[in-house]
Amino acid sequence: MPGYSVCVVGVTGAVGQELLRVLEERNFPVNNLRVCATQRSAGKQVTYRGEQLTVEETRPAVFDGIDIALFAGGAASNEFAREAATRGAVVIDNSSAFRLEPDVPLVVPEVNPEDVKWHKGIIANPNCSTIIMVVPLKPLYDAAGIRRVVVATYQAVSGAGAAAIKELEAQTKAVLAGEDYPPQVFPYQIAFNLIPHIDVFMDMDYTKEEWKMVKETQKIFHDDTIQVTATTVRVPVFRSHSEAVNVETIKPLGVEKARSLLAGAPGVVVIDDPATKQYPMPLTVTGRNEVFVGRIRQDNSLDKGLNLWVVADQLRKGAATNAVQIAELVIQYGCL
Amino acid sequence: MPGYSVCVVGVTGAVGQELLRVLEERNFPVNNLRVCATQRSAGKQVTYRGEQLTVEETRPAVFDGIDIALFAGGAASNEFAREAATRGAVVIDNSSAFRLEPDVPLVVPEVNPEDVKWHKGIIANPNCSTIIMVVPLKPLYDAAGIRRVVVATYQAVSGAGAAAIKELEAQTKAVLAGEDYPPQVFPYQIAFNLIPHIDVFMDMDYTKEEWKMVKETQKIFHDDTIQVTATTVRVPVFRSHSEAVNVETIKPLGVEKARSLLAGAPGVVVIDDPATKQYPMPLTVTGRNEVFVGRIRQDNSLDKGLNLWVVADQLRKGAATNAVQIAELVIQYGCL
Repeated sequence: MPGYSVCVVGVTGAVGQELLRVLEERNFPVNNLRVCATQRSAGKQVTYRGEQLTVEETRPAVFDGIDIALFAGGAASNEFAREAATRGAVVIDNSSAFRLEPDVPLVVPEVNPEDVKWHKGIIANPNCSTIIMVVPLKPLYDAAGIRRVVVATYQAVSGAGAAAIKELEAQTKAVLAGEDYPPQVFPYQIAFNLIPHIDVFMDMDYTKEEWKMVKETQKIFHDDTIQVTATTVRVPVFRSHSEAVNVETIKPLGVEKARSLLAGAPGVVVIDDPATKQYPMPLTVTGRNEVFVGRIRQDNSLDKGLNLWVVADQLRKGAATNAVQIAELVIQYGCL
Repeated sequence: MPGYSVCVVGVTGAVGQELLRVLEERNFPVNNLRVCATQRSAGKQVTYRGEQLTVEETRPAVFDGIDIALFAGGAASNEFAREAATRGAVVIDNSSAFRLEPDVPLVVPEVNPEDVKWHKGIIANPNCSTIIMVVPLKPLYDAAGIRRVVVATYQAVSGAGAAAIKELEAQTKAVLAGEDYPPQVFPYQIAFNLIPHIDVFMDMDYTKEEWKMVKETQKIFHDDTIQVTATTVRVPVFRSHSEAVNVETIKPLGVEKARSLLAGAPGVVVIDDPATKQYPMPLTVTGRNEVFVGRIRQDNSLDKGLNLWVVADQLRKGAATNAVQIAELVIQYGCL
């Protein structure tokens, strides 16, 4: 098997670390790996296949000779992604910078793998909450069409990066000890609290996170008629996002048919047995690569409605796993 | 001002303790207070207006001469509520035992105060999540009608009682120390986790908590055409429930009109200023008696839709405050 030159940008963050693990676990054909981050992290060591690698500062020259550049997200994407593509790398970018650009495919391999083929140097990885939602929507869409989705999210702190994980841990300890721990990453205390505000506020008083779930879903499905309305909320959970998803299909689709479609869908695992209290939870799906679906119910308020409870590790399928799957498609389709 | 003989049943639990505080804060006209609980708690002391009262074991004779019996909920309601009513008390019951009985009014004072008038000895206090939702729905219903509500809840552990509060605290400490703390109150670990399962599973794989939000809402509004579909989830928050509420009205109702109706509605406080990051959160509304509404948005997926983020202290407005408000109506309407 041939190997490829791969560069991971933002390697010291929560998503960057997960990218290394997923490349290793999936036996991605790497024959040369460069690991980059901001100046602040340059010189640090990271581990890949038991080997210590030294983190370089990201700069244009690191992309020379690179086949695939995996960007973990953040400011580096705006600064270096186009440059990396110009220098011949296929960029798979986890930031929101290029997702809605018309010349950039936005790909979830279980939904729109073929979009990889028309890339012009950059392929965007969707928002974590969007990925987690569209994977189980796909089989329902194919079978019955989707008119409208009402979604409420329960998002883990690790979606806001490594510093946010530390903040939840340290702040929780402080609160339990009766001490003060002012928020730094989040706008308010997240320990034992909920914050209905992720990313910045935009049009119509929706947050950017909420608009991502609308616009990215339409782009991934190539279907502007899918209506999505979202409320996104940060919860005091370390890892794995959950979503209460209400789906209105166009054609009728009974709950048993929906269940069997979901059980057979790629990337989906159904955990749904009320009698034995089986349903997905953040704690039990963390570290897994699939999207877990439970609480599958016929909507009692609507003929063509379904309720789902969807949970997935947003650092895995919501970010690193999806990015590496895209890289695998790039190789499989020969579109490096 | 005349005073009344009041009995609080289940006084040592989370709701019972709150009932004493709310009676005191609202200057409820008590001239004789009996405090009861199970045999296990009999003999304990509780505080009311600075006075120590000894908890009695609940038994039929304690209700002799009682004007108003406030039941905190639990098994005592099934065992003693009808008996208390027979002995002449007006029972205000926080359990789910009588809520859907045709001869029992189910009352939220901001929505259907007049229903107090036809009581036959028992008035039921609705489920906490239902109360918190219907208070802000009321002004929207009056102005534009309600076709359908899609709600996802984020429910604090104190909804499961005092033992659940201890479990979250002790389990969180254990998890942070790397120690094991097997769940006792909840079916799974709640620390840094979510459990999409509240109360028992029933028809169509909905939980009883989810059905309560459907059936109780219809009974409170006297309108079976209001469609409600719910997903109810326990979150690692000590106190105050939150709900992402999507409302489809029958007539169009713009977001500005909705905002002004909510701001003027009894029992509702609007906290909604994205520019200054103002929205309700469990931490900031705990201990308050009102229902707090923020993130008020025109539904981007539907002409006649609105999204709301609703938070309230479920031990207050979701239980004790609502019950004491009902008792005040009983006196006001002279229907003791």
